[in-house]
Amino acid sequence: MNGPRRYFASDNNATVSAEVMAALEEANVGHATGYGDDPWTERAARVFKRHFGDQAETQIVFNGTGANIVALSAIMRPYEAVLCSAQAHLHVDECGALERASGSKVMVLPDIDGKVSAEDLRPYRVWHGDVHRSQPRVLSITNATEYATVYTPGEIRALAGECREQGLALHVDGARLCNAAAALGLPLRALTTDCGVDVVSFGGTKNGLMQGEAIVWLTGRPAHADFTRKQAAQLGSKMRFSAAQLIALLDGDLWLRNARRANAMAALLRDRLAGAPGVHITRPVEANGVFARIPKIAAEALKERFHFYVWDPAVTEVRWMCSHDTTEDDVAEFADAVRAEAAKGN
Amino acid sequence: MNGPRRYFASDNNATVSAEVMAALEEANVGHATGYGDDPWTERAARVFKRHFGDQAETQIVFNGTGANIVALSAIMRPYEAVLCSAQAHLHVDECGALERASGSKVMVLPDIDGKVSAEDLRPYRVWHGDVHRSQPRVLSITNATEYATVYTPGEIRALAGECREQGLALHVDGARLCNAAAALGLPLRALTTDCGVDVVSFGGTKNGLMQGEAIVWLTGRPAHADFTRKQAAQLGSKMRFSAAQLIALLDGDLWLRNARRANAMAALLRDRLAGAPGVHITRPVEANGVFARIPKIAAEALKERFHFYVWDPAVTEVRWMCSHDTTEDDVAEFADAVRAEAAKGN
Amino acid sequence: MNGPRRYFASDNNATVSAEVMAALEEANVGHATGYGDDPWTERAARVFKRHFGDQAETQIVFNGTGANIVALSAIMRPYEAVLCSAQAHLHVDECGALERASGSKVMVLPDIDGKVSAEDLRPYRVWHGDVHRSQPRVLSITNATEYATVYTPGEIRALAGECREQGLALHVDGARLCNAAAALGLPLRALTTDCGVDVVSFGGTKNGLMQGEAIVWLTGRPAHADFTRKQAAQLGSKMRFSAAQLIALLDGDLWLRNARRANAMAALLRDRLAGAPGVHITRPVEANGVFARIPKIAAEALKERFHFYVWDPAVTEVRWMCSHDTTEDDVAEFADAVRAEAAKGN
Amino acid sequence: MNGPRRYFASDNNATVSAEVMAALEEANVGHATGYGDDPWTERAARVFKRHFGDQAETQIVFNGTGANIVALSAIMRPYEAVLCSAQAHLHVDECGALERASGSKVMVLPDIDGKVSAEDLRPYRVWHGDVHRSQPRVLSITNATEYATVYTPGEIRALAGECREQGLALHVDGARLCNAAAALGLPLRALTTDCGVDVVSFGGTKNGLMQGEAIVWLTGRPAHADFTRKQAAQLGSKMRFSAAQLIALLDGDLWLRNARRANAMAALLRDRLAGAPGVHITRPVEANGVFARIPKIAAEALKERFHFYVWDPAVTEVRWMCSHDTTEDDVAEFADAVRAEAAKGN
Repeated sequence: MNGPRRYFASDNNATVSAEVMAALEEANVGHATGYGDDPWTERAARVFKRHFGDQAETQIVFNGTGANIVALSAIMRPYEAVLCSAQAHLHVDECGALERASGSKVMVLPDIDGKVSAEDLRPYRVWHGDVHRSQPRVLSITNATEYATVYTPGEIRALAGECREQGLALHVDGARLCNAAAALGLPLRALTTDCGVDVVSFGGTKNGLMQGEAIVWLTGRPAHADFTRKQAAQLGSKMRFSAAQLIALLDGDLWLRNARRANAMAALLRDRLAGAPGVHITRPVEANGVFARIPKIAAEALKERFHFYVWDPAVTEVRWMCSHDTTEDDVAEFADAVRAEAAKGN
Repeated sequence: MNGPRRYFASDNNATVSAEVMAALEEANVGHATGYGDDPWTERAARVFKRHFGDQAETQIVFNGTGANIVALSAIMRPYEAVLCSAQAHLHVDECGALERASGSKVMVLPDIDGKVSAEDLRPYRVWHGDVHRSQPRVLSITNATEYATVYTPGEIRALAGECREQGLALHVDGARLCNAAAALGLPLRALTTDCGVDVVSFGGTKNGLMQGEAIVWLTGRPAHADFTRKQAAQLGSKMRFSAAQLIALLDGDLWLRNARRANAMAALLRDRLAGAPGVHITRPVEANGVFARIPKIAAEALKERFHFYVWDPAVTEVRWMCSHDTTEDDVAEFADAVRAEAAKGN
Repeated sequence: MNGPRRYFASDNNATVSAEVMAALEEANVGHATGYGDDPWTERAARVFKRHFGDQAETQIVFNGTGANIVALSAIMRPYEAVLCSAQAHLHVDECGALERASGSKVMVLPDIDGKVSAEDLRPYRVWHGDVHRSQPRVLSITNATEYATVYTPGEIRALAGECREQGLALHVDGARLCNAAAALGLPLRALTTDCGVDVVSFGGTKNGLMQGEAIVWLTGRPAHADFTRKQAAQLGSKMRFSAAQLIALLDGDLWLRNARRANAMAALLRDRLAGAPGVHITRPVEANGVFARIPKIAAEALKERFHFYVWDPAVTEVRWMCSHDTTEDDVAEFADAVRAEAAKGN
Repeated sequence: MNGPRRYFASDNNATVSAEVMAALEEANVGHATGYGDDPWTERAARVFKRHFGDQAETQIVFNGTGANIVALSAIMRPYEAVLCSAQAHLHVDECGALERASGSKVMVLPDIDGKVSAEDLRPYRVWHGDVHRSQPRVLSITNATEYATVYTPGEIRALAGECREQGLALHVDGARLCNAAAALGLPLRALTTDCGVDVVSFGGTKNGLMQGEAIVWLTGRPAHADFTRKQAAQLGSKMRFSAAQLIALLDGDLWLRNARRANAMAALLRDRLAGAPGVHITRPVEANGVFARIPKIAAEALKERFHFYVWDPAVTEVRWMCSHDTTEDDVAEFADAVRAEAAKGN
């Protein structure tokens, strides 16, 4: 096969949507004041309000880790702790960014397929006020999760209830929030604002942008959050170009089309692998990723031709992510290859 | 005047060069592995070697503050200190990013027009080994400086000599390094590699990029610097797009054309203001900025029509920055306005 | 009962040994240079060498948390992680001191009665070199553990072996190291130096001192560790008085007498509760603490007359610590009270 | 001369007052709950209220650096800055402890003999609200200063006025506050509470204690300050022994007797050196230290027989500190030696 290739390694390996490229061109005219004091950033803020409600306040940052550390360290004092699942990107895939940025502790909750429960939060009630213990301050959940499963509004509301009980803020790492909303057929606010979420790390980069993430404050932005962003080196000078991308994503339905396509391709991949000998799907396929156990020898053979990640080497659980630009042909070719190699290795 | 406007507020208010936009389009094809393991990033690394020498190793980051904190905190332990001028961007315009990222102290040296001298470094010789004192570890200079003056190779070599004496690394904040090189008619390495500089924060954003800065290690990259970048939230996932911009800037002579133009416009502005009543040029105009004292009333009148910053409100010293897209007409219009207002206010 | 009372809340509630008080008086003569450049500190260093071997280098600090953060942050870079049990004092009882001091991550290992195994360390082998993950750098174990159980030399050697495999340093939080050594009838080095331990937080405060903890480096002190101590605010000015206490503890056999007595009292308490209805001893009683589940109503009744802590409120697991000054009468009185209340509550 | 010696190196080289030793013995009876929940700590809090007013709330910590970092990092967010003189202990003699503990910036003000002025604070008014700048949050002054000069109540009130203007807290590093009060013949509150000071690092160690410093909050203790202290590793377990020392110092007039004696000895030393050839007193002798320029050769000769510090090697400015246990004979002997050597070197 000639020409450009697409793989199943990560949705951040994908291209930038054509509408987004066009928006960059359009924004590239004349001078604009730096650091967010420009018309594009102002318009992006309004677009976010349409999706998340009038009270939503937005800060544009560079990347998802940046969104997480700015949002959380604007909320937390160093003696406080964030609670999250052991799978949480902020815990295992950000190289300790939060600990360094905020000086705060990360406490791990048990999870099922990446999702935590209010019940497992409850034991922390007795920690509050004990001077020897980091004080729980935020619950951070990822939606869609790192296992590409999706929290429902009911599940989020239950978590928000326990958070209120303990005085915790509820943060959603929404690197794939669009995929979660698309999966449930719901608007973005139905998974956030309407469930009692306080702040979202909203991701665009995995859903067709070149680079553009935002913190969306739903119940009030801390007065100092702009200082926190600046000190964290997450305040871009030519912000109009990030804002223009976010507008392109959210002003129309590009966010939904892109996310739906990625989700659909994951479902298709799952379906095409149904019953394949040697392939065991390990997690519910709810958003744009498929997790499976395959024979180790099959994984190795496949990796010679395709990029993807072995998520848990101990049991050869692999992760296959679909993107807004994944095609049915991509899926068909890959599924055939997986079937062939897994059958051999089985 | 109709159409897009350009001002003298900052070179980061400017547009993106057409070659850079074209490079982004070209890079937007197929999947590419994230986080820098892609052909564009590899090629950018080779392009940097052409400019800075074969030993140069590059890390792409999001912004200048990011470059400074990653470079410096990869070098420093928290009990160590960076020395810099009181004008240094990292000291007064990064909201304490270094202190937070690294836990290290910033110590201030006296400066003349933004430039420090080896002589003022010397008293720190006696600090080394004193357990009560933050240990000097890095000298950071900015070139071109925050006052748009330029360190010559001889001046940098003298500083590098004193740094060697004390075991300090020499860091150059090169947010405007291209402007400095263009001003002196020298290649980039003549101001860095050849003078004993250890590491550069190389800036592209102020010289025609959309967003793209790089740390260039000239005497060896610390083994852990990639972890430092990741933990500092400065590792971009879709890095090919930053790399493509840097290639567009540095593979040909775009870096030089853009910088020369910006510098020339500053010189033109200075020249057109020569002898203007009420206008006192306060700093040597060596790169792309003009600093001047004007009557306060003139500054206020001008700010109603043009964006620029009052650098020192105590004496109404203003800063006028030129960009790669500043035109002679822009300068003429602005200089006429300044002359008119300053004469009134005088 | 008249006169001073002793309880089972913590060995840090206890008095200061008479020999230690005498040593303070003796040290209080003439001027001594501050910050450790005095004869007492020098002599303490020699005394530590007698116990831990000639290569041992000592830093005196204020408290156990201070010892942990100085030792660990002298070893670790912020992108690195310390691994420890979920019970580890540094994880749950130091309010996130390490995260703040070092910016590093704490990763939790499963434990049995406070002890971790080499097997549970092994999965981290694949983390090394992955830029997205905090890099494992230190294994920290507590001996005697937070459950007053004791690692044997064989167990420590097995952990040290896996540490070497992964390039981890092995740290022992030895707030109760004397109790562990006394329990096993071994010299201090048999549990540390001879097992491949790299650094110890040695505790004196829980074993009869007024205030005096030390970091003991067994395989080389990092060159900058004195700066780390100073920056962490753990360098005392009148250090002779801490040193004098440590000399009093370790020059003769006070450390052993005190620890043996505390251990013996815990064993006695366990024995006197053997078979008591409603009292379930939950952990092996190996050092100076007894953990038990008792009826909640019994715990409440006992707490009105005695101080102690409910370790796990979910199951009313309580902790009773014995000290160097606990008497057989104290134990008898308390055991009788426990028996009486537990029988009622049963 | 036989027997114990006393020098002029530092007041922290001195002995512990006999009353303090007695208080330690008295406190050493029975068990006391750890971490400050004991009768001595409660009583110390009441004693502090007598000196600083009923609203004063106290936290006992280990050392002066600990007091500074806990007090300041309880007040400041990382994006904020503390302003202080270039001589400030927290800036030059704490190895960057504040930057590491808090992530905050230290900004330096000009000083005369260690004292800063409201006028030099004023230019920071324009910094507030500028997102690129660390936000001024605290002014920290040292009283008595590092040059053993003393701020008068009038001077402190003027600073407090400018602090109010800018919304800054006013912190006093009172490592030698007793010496300042003794020098002015005023109660402690006249230099603090009554002048609009918000928080004091109160020092006992330099005034006859073994080890005991306290943070005294005068206008309200931040709700989280106990967590800040714990996380900073400054919460002692056997706190009764620090509290007992502070009670011994402040319940009667020991604080005043000790400070007066130290001050008087400095005045005596100054007087005995009056007119001595080659000896130039460089700072007003207002508390317990004498600063002088002497010939370099004289400094070297004296240092062979006496301990003291050369404060500024560039001009051989030396510091001679007196203590509560300095005798007239000590001063006489030393002054004679200085006269003799300075005359030679002159």
